[in-house]
Amino acid sequence: MGELIGEVATDTLYFVERSEFDRVLRLNAPDAEKALLFADLARINTLYMIARAGSGHIGSSFSTMDMAAWLHLYAMDRTSATPDIYFSSKGHDAPGLYALLTALGVQDFELIHRFRRLDGLPGHPDRLFPGMVTNTGSLGMGISKAKGMSHAMSARGEHRRRIFVVLGDGELQEGQIWESLVSAANRHQGRIIAIVDHNKLQSDTFVSETSDLGDLEAKFQAFGWNVKRVNGHDIEAFALALSDWRNETTRPKMIIADTVKGKGISFMEHTAMESDAALYRFHSGAPDAASYSMGLQEILDRVNRRLETLATRGLSLETVEPPARVASDASIPVERLVPVYTELLLEAARKDGKIVALDADLALDTGLLPFKAEFPARFVECGISEMDMVSQAGGMALQGLLPICHSFACFLGTRANEQIYNNATEKTKVGYVGALAGILPAAPGHSHQSVRDISAVGGVPHLILADPASGADLRLLFDLLAIRGNKSFYLRITSIPWERPYAATPPQDLGIGQGYAIREGKDGVIFAYGPVMLANAWRAAERIAAKSGKQFKVINLPFLNQIDLEWLKTIVLGAPAIVTVDNHYIAGGLGEKLLAAAATVGWSGKVRQFGLTDVPPGGQPAEVLERLGLDCKGLAKAIGASF
Amino acid sequence: MGELIGEVATDTLYFVERSEFDRVLRLNAPDAEKALLFADLARINTLYMIARAGSGHIGSSFSTMDMAAWLHLYAMDRTSATPDIYFSSKGHDAPGLYALLTALGVQDFELIHRFRRLDGLPGHPDRLFPGMVTNTGSLGMGISKAKGMSHAMSARGEHRRRIFVVLGDGELQEGQIWESLVSAANRHQGRIIAIVDHNKLQSDTFVSETSDLGDLEAKFQAFGWNVKRVNGHDIEAFALALSDWRNETTRPKMIIADTVKGKGISFMEHTAMESDAALYRFHSGAPDAASYSMGLQEILDRVNRRLETLATRGLSLETVEPPARVASDASIPVERLVPVYTELLLEAARKDGKIVALDADLALDTGLLPFKAEFPARFVECGISEMDMVSQAGGMALQGLLPICHSFACFLGTRANEQIYNNATEKTKVGYVGALAGILPAAPGHSHQSVRDISAVGGVPHLILADPASGADLRLLFDLLAIRGNKSFYLRITSIPWERPYAATPPQDLGIGQGYAIREGKDGVIFAYGPVMLANAWRAAERIAAKSGKQFKVINLPFLNQIDLEWLKTIVLGAPAIVTVDNHYIAGGLGEKLLAAAATVGWSGKVRQFGLTDVPPGGQPAEVLERLGLDCKGLAKAIGASF
Repeated sequence: MGELIGEVATDTLYFVERSEFDRVLRLNAPDAEKALLFADLARINTLYMIARAGSGHIGSSFSTMDMAAWLHLYAMDRTSATPDIYFSSKGHDAPGLYALLTALGVQDFELIHRFRRLDGLPGHPDRLFPGMVTNTGSLGMGISKAKGMSHAMSARGEHRRRIFVVLGDGELQEGQIWESLVSAANRHQGRIIAIVDHNKLQSDTFVSETSDLGDLEAKFQAFGWNVKRVNGHDIEAFALALSDWRNETTRPKMIIADTVKGKGISFMEHTAMESDAALYRFHSGAPDAASYSMGLQEILDRVNRRLETLATRGLSLETVEPPARVASDASIPVERLVPVYTELLLEAARKDGKIVALDADLALDTGLLPFKAEFPARFVECGISEMDMVSQAGGMALQGLLPICHSFACFLGTRANEQIYNNATEKTKVGYVGALAGILPAAPGHSHQSVRDISAVGGVPHLILADPASGADLRLLFDLLAIRGNKSFYLRITSIPWERPYAATPPQDLGIGQGYAIREGKDGVIFAYGPVMLANAWRAAERIAAKSGKQFKVINLPFLNQIDLEWLKTIVLGAPAIVTVDNHYIAGGLGEKLLAAAATVGWSGKVRQFGLTDVPPGGQPAEVLERLGLDCKGLAKAIGASF
Repeated sequence: MGELIGEVATDTLYFVERSEFDRVLRLNAPDAEKALLFADLARINTLYMIARAGSGHIGSSFSTMDMAAWLHLYAMDRTSATPDIYFSSKGHDAPGLYALLTALGVQDFELIHRFRRLDGLPGHPDRLFPGMVTNTGSLGMGISKAKGMSHAMSARGEHRRRIFVVLGDGELQEGQIWESLVSAANRHQGRIIAIVDHNKLQSDTFVSETSDLGDLEAKFQAFGWNVKRVNGHDIEAFALALSDWRNETTRPKMIIADTVKGKGISFMEHTAMESDAALYRFHSGAPDAASYSMGLQEILDRVNRRLETLATRGLSLETVEPPARVASDASIPVERLVPVYTELLLEAARKDGKIVALDADLALDTGLLPFKAEFPARFVECGISEMDMVSQAGGMALQGLLPICHSFACFLGTRANEQIYNNATEKTKVGYVGALAGILPAAPGHSHQSVRDISAVGGVPHLILADPASGADLRLLFDLLAIRGNKSFYLRITSIPWERPYAATPPQDLGIGQGYAIREGKDGVIFAYGPVMLANAWRAAERIAAKSGKQFKVINLPFLNQIDLEWLKTIVLGAPAIVTVDNHYIAGGLGEKLLAAAATVGWSGKVRQFGLTDVPPGGQPAEVLERLGLDCKGLAKAIGASF
């Protein structure tokens, strides 16, 4: 059982047990007051989950929390055979929603200890978990999904069911939102109630700085929706807005809820941020120990003051030791590719005035902040509008510039897939840089694991895909493709730092479609790419050698859709086995292309392919790779057993 | 030299020589009157090009013609070092624009005889032709492209250059349009003047029936644009709107031009269509001989009346024999897959109330009109909104329906690429049907040639791709995947009718990932799929046998991302050679996957891959396949020489 905590200890984590949530609901107080108290308890658990996981979205979980609590406790029909539905299209508020759903018993309470862990609660919504209606995290799909659900409900005659969809204000920059608004109005899908969590901030900074939304009410009204604007932390006003619409069954409804990002912990609230600040610190990272305990103390004090007013005992908290962090071996170099990219881009931009960097609201993650600072006129912030970004780049290239588009790899090649192809058919040169590529980090979940991009853009002509495994690779590839090349290029960048146990010395005359050995051996060739899989392949080869004496050559092949057949002959002919290790689905990955090329040059022998065959699990790096058999141990075992 | 034509002869084509356009410009008449005359002459040549080509977009070329003529003749700076730019985002009006540009000498006049032919003017804009600024045909990218161009111009200090972008009204259903509007306003890109060709009709029928646009002026104003609404055939009003804005350099501008689709030939004008008609006949097809001559006569009479009023001689026309149509051999069966699909869908829907058909404004082309008529409540017209359609389908599947999404293959898997993946991660069952798949027809140009979709969606888990080569294949695959399967499926449908010289008898027990032989032989195995390539492969094998006696087995492998390895062993082991023929880029096509699988099962031998390595050319089927070496003669020669 928990205990009353006066002063929060540092280096300790705390959470609220279900019984305390139940106690709040039994208090003799107005519903709105209980909802706000319940929300604050859920904030404590949200903070706990994120601090324990080491990452997660605090700001957005807190800004929606009061409304979400009200809806789940007092507004939605959650118990009939045809209950109302609630989901978040933006998905960043998942930990906040988990905190509510575990408190309500919809989700197993124990899951709060396994946020962003293997088989635990994923970083973004996945419908395979109770209470999660649909998979989100890739933005802009929520209203469309709701429309499809609404169609099914109408077909079944379930006319009273409502669908609540939470949208981010940054998310409104996605074209799909506007694409989806029109027919909801035309088709009278009045059961849809969308709520814009208008917390004024997106991933990097203020929405107004990124791509100002203008007059939102006028926009939604022009698209035929019923619109109300309320303070999203004033629960009475919010409830009134909803009840006002009780008899309005025809027109879909949009609540623009003015909220505060990070609401509930004063120093995390966006209103505490300077209006010209470049970065909001509590978008997706975990708080440090001091911020955690200070923030918790603030919520706790507020909750206890309220409980005291209601003449009941203070809040009991459960105490948990924070998980130990694994120390890394300082003697092994760690690859961090994004800072190298930043340097390369700056160097190039100083020499070549034609270079323009375009960003889709990930300037921090893609390493563009120094570029933005040094070349403000050559930095184009597009907002969360990947299609628009890529086509803008196409227009720039037609006018003689060298545009380079930046986003996460999971979004860039897939959301703007057709736009990338359209640019390619114009045979201009456009650069694409997709960060956060590959299986890791797996904590954000499959919406953010870019394991399909090689397939999605690999077939685009005049576009060369490359995946550097080290800073040295990146330097060489950037020079070859961005500086000296005349084709479009796509750099697939692993963002997670990764230990590199082998020497990174790419041959300076590496040609397009060629790789190089990082380990020699005559018993077979392992092909891999990128920091994670290459390190694992190298370690697996070492392990096999130690165990069986078999020596596998390990090839770093950084080109993902180009293979130099003459070079390949020198590597594979005579080799008894080929192993391919994809940081991607096997389908459409490099392995298939490589094996096809090997067949073409007349190679034959034993084959083994590694990579994904299903949607990857979320979790911490080591546990996810182990589950997939893609850690060095798993690879060594499988390869050792195969040959 | 041309001659005065009183009455137009049937079975003859006519065009206007450049000198006649020049004569119009020298007339002593107001500019607006000359522009309208010039536009009518260009209409005659547009009609000629389309009649000669056998396809092309009359309706949209005619609705924009008056404005385009005015802009090019009297409004745009076309001669300075930093000229104004004009392009069409919708791209359907390409033949109309060619008629203007050839008349103005921007394009070689002789090109009007090679519309939609190899090395001639492509069906949609391609920037490799003079006067064509950017590649369009895939909708919604125009404003984004203009913004990129504008950025480059501003960076160079070219502050007076304007960019005119023509948008379709149906095109406004694409989310990218709205995604692109916001930052144009925020970034004060006042040089951009977009013109909505508001002709009220899209591909299938009225915009209002498809996805009503609502209050367009309010929408654009809410997005921060300057908006004016004019009659697009009232040149004085149009000119006034432009000149009104001369000093407004900050805000981007939108002209909503009310136009008449097919304007200039009374029976092609949309206003001549019943308001509840399901189809507009002159969207993309060529007129029949009677419509051609009747339509031409009407324009000619109008032009001559005007010339007479201006006291000058009547219009001279050049006379051309219409090209002979190749008669097909009635003894060879012709595969038409879309009507078979229609039947299968209807049969299935009668038995299974869960089936819903979603369409993205291609109900005629994807064979959905009978479904719409029989099951109006289960037909969802999404408009040109592929992302929204696919995510709606996702929502329906979550609610227990079996949604099937329809579009052209070139758009479905690429514009909604991320949305298809998002649905797949939910592990529901959603159907996708992409018509107009493959290299042919090539007349519309590369925006409509779906030769990248296998790569773009082939890596999506829980999604089975299949490409039927015959009606019999389609029946079998539909049963296996749509009726009996539990995974999502993507049917890649060739729309063009194609002769099938071999027997179409798929084994009824065909498993997923298996194909079957349509010809036996021991000297090698040719793998192909789809009506076009399979017929060509079969004919090539016959030709090789006749010439050299070598017998190639020909396998129809309709599964594009699944290969049953046990089955494959029975086909390839012992075969001295494998040939793969992709109706797709080689990169990411079936051939790569097949060769990788062959290597995996231990096969070795000689290899030859066929398919595309570059953006395919446009033109008529035979000439395009010949150029690519993918006709039966080219395949036979290359295969014969290789083995």
